[in-house]
Amino acid sequence: MSILQIGAGGVGWVVAHKAAQNNDVLGDITIASRSIEKCEKIIESIKGKNNLKDSTKKLEAKAVNADDVEALVALIKDVQPDLVINAGPPWVNVSIMEACYQAKVSYLDTSVAVDLCSEGQQVPEAYDPQWAFREKFEEAGITGILGAGFDPGVVSVFAAYAAKHLFDEIETIDVMDINAGDHGKKFATNFDPETNMLEIQGDSFYWEQEEWHQVPCHTRMMEFDFPRCGNFKVYSMAHDEVRSLKEFIPAKRIEFWMGFGDRYLNYFNCMRDIGLLSADPVTLQDGTSVYPLKVLKALLPDPTSLAPGYTGLTCIGTWVRGKKDGKERSVFIYNNADHEVAYKDVEHQAIAYTTGVPAITAALQYFRGEWAGKGVYNMEQLNPDPFLETMPTIGLSWDVQELDPSEPVIHHLDKE
Amino acid sequence: MSILQIGAGGVGWVVAHKAAQNNDVLGDITIASRSIEKCEKIIESIKGKNNLKDSTKKLEAKAVNADDVEALVALIKDVQPDLVINAGPPWVNVSIMEACYQAKVSYLDTSVAVDLCSEGQQVPEAYDPQWAFREKFEEAGITGILGAGFDPGVVSVFAAYAAKHLFDEIETIDVMDINAGDHGKKFATNFDPETNMLEIQGDSFYWEQEEWHQVPCHTRMMEFDFPRCGNFKVYSMAHDEVRSLKEFIPAKRIEFWMGFGDRYLNYFNCMRDIGLLSADPVTLQDGTSVYPLKVLKALLPDPTSLAPGYTGLTCIGTWVRGKKDGKERSVFIYNNADHEVAYKDVEHQAIAYTTGVPAITAALQYFRGEWAGKGVYNMEQLNPDPFLETMPTIGLSWDVQELDPSEPVIHHLDKE
Repeated sequence: MSILQIGAGGVGWVVAHKAAQNNDVLGDITIASRSIEKCEKIIESIKGKNNLKDSTKKLEAKAVNADDVEALVALIKDVQPDLVINAGPPWVNVSIMEACYQAKVSYLDTSVAVDLCSEGQQVPEAYDPQWAFREKFEEAGITGILGAGFDPGVVSVFAAYAAKHLFDEIETIDVMDINAGDHGKKFATNFDPETNMLEIQGDSFYWEQEEWHQVPCHTRMMEFDFPRCGNFKVYSMAHDEVRSLKEFIPAKRIEFWMGFGDRYLNYFNCMRDIGLLSADPVTLQDGTSVYPLKVLKALLPDPTSLAPGYTGLTCIGTWVRGKKDGKERSVFIYNNADHEVAYKDVEHQAIAYTTGVPAITAALQYFRGEWAGKGVYNMEQLNPDPFLETMPTIGLSWDVQELDPSEPVIHHLDKE
Repeated sequence: MSILQIGAGGVGWVVAHKAAQNNDVLGDITIASRSIEKCEKIIESIKGKNNLKDSTKKLEAKAVNADDVEALVALIKDVQPDLVINAGPPWVNVSIMEACYQAKVSYLDTSVAVDLCSEGQQVPEAYDPQWAFREKFEEAGITGILGAGFDPGVVSVFAAYAAKHLFDEIETIDVMDINAGDHGKKFATNFDPETNMLEIQGDSFYWEQEEWHQVPCHTRMMEFDFPRCGNFKVYSMAHDEVRSLKEFIPAKRIEFWMGFGDRYLNYFNCMRDIGLLSADPVTLQDGTSVYPLKVLKALLPDPTSLAPGYTGLTCIGTWVRGKKDGKERSVFIYNNADHEVAYKDVEHQAIAYTTGVPAITAALQYFRGEWAGKGVYNMEQLNPDPFLETMPTIGLSWDVQELDPSEPVIHHLDKE
């Protein structure tokens, strides 16, 4: 048995550690990225933490340009893995899927959100390029598992679990995501600042009454009491799983919400007001053309540098409302992840941890034959039970909280 | 008679308009800057507004690099002006003074503040490079008038007026500067963003009890009720005139204060926190090195673009406390300038207007022989009376307000 992991950023870091901790099932591990040094640094951390469970199995670094399908095919043929995991950026999903198709090897990734802000790449079309591989994967006899992070990923499994066990009829699905942790910096992003800032300023898309609704960012807000974290304001945002949930778990309204503190939003609004969050280049007085977001990225702390001092919890979950046995029901299925616990386990923070642990949980289902159907699958299409049994054993617990079944109060905020 | 004006930015714009309105005294006008197009645009505006009082006098544009002393000397010899006015940036003061000395022509500028933040260029040393020309100017039989804007400039004349007419003994001199105008933008600076942002984040220097005191920006605050503008918070800041007032008008404490609204300070703090106000370059992922402040400059509105829609008033003045006829006395000598009035007069906003009008007021004193002593002078060294008689006739009125002679309440704010 063996896996080939592509990507050596924050998520790649956690995926590799978790794969190593489970290499009795996953076998040999090859980590490949554009920069072989980044892969070697991860391997060093895995060995330093004694995270390689079966030390007779291989753990290797390779260099590859993940945009280059031919190079990927050559690498896959060389490594001969049973599964390719894209733990790198989502914009290489399609080239890696094409390489897997050509090399006839199964595939798994953690996110589709390349750029949910640009025309033709927004939520309603988000999965189109990857869903186009359905027949090809079936025909090749391989498995594709899409969006196996936390959100998308576990939140979709939570929805499938709710549909299977907790409800006869689902009314609304709200994915809720907050980070109540503290990195001690005045302002920093938890993953790539460029991606993060593009993501949070795009219009939100939600599905309601059989159609898509598009609204400007931070204009739909609600307050929610998160277990162990307390009351937070959350804002409707464009996010991948809304698209796939709409496809596979019918509901009257499906929406994604992210928590932003007032302090974070103040920085965000200032940066947006002065034009620093623009995706368009500006020309400096000396004629140099620069992208403001790339300047911001260079100014802000490297997200991976936040991990050592990070404290506090995240809370991500799926809030489902509907009917069971003729009665109204409302449940919140969720995880709390602790930044310090994540750091002790894999030397990284909880944001990457909550993405990396589910990817390996899903990979384990594939290797055990639980999730090994031929074709391309989103997480909510697959049996939630074995996945939810495995996940707590490798780092992330989950719980179900019964809520008062009243309607959520959504505030419509006017923009300045 | 004739003048040579160097500089064609915001202040240059106003200086040229005002010179044209007074060309019966000042004679032919030559405007020179690195970009001849900017000079030509000003000439077009002057002609469009019919601001050339005596249309038989010349109004010409020339190109010059003001860093190049030889080129300046050649230009001065070609134009043969009676006075050279530096209406451009203060960092060319010294090269223009040197050229004036070599060509034996009198000199006037509006500010010394190159960079009051950097070691060796702070308030205590601010005038050293220009004061070094005192003997040379005397020997050459020419006049140098330094800092003939509003602040420095008129505020120093106000202090001289107070010393001459209103006080027997001066205790404190506080220069107070607020802009209560509204440009309608979320965030913009009234002059070059790079200079502005460097200036306001530097340590403040004030003179008290025979020594210099250095404190971080925005840590000394007081509230003051400005005529026609109301109550504003003002913060102690490094500014040129504190240095020259200390030299020529003895007082126990001399300090400069600038008003910043909470909204402005919030933008400022956000930009500083993320590193955008740093004077040091950052390296982007692709290896390009850029100066954050130059990126900010490219993002923010061009200060000259703010003028057409600008409304409201500025209030700048000198608050003097001391004794007269044995009694405690406190007076505020000030001007209110109106952005809309400034725009109607010269197609520019009040910030540049309050700098340009005093420069031409001072030039008129030179041409009338009131301020024509040989050597180098700061404004407070010269007779305030003819200057204060002329200034209202060419655009800026002034007034004296008697205040309750109690001590100002200075708040010491702790930094985060």
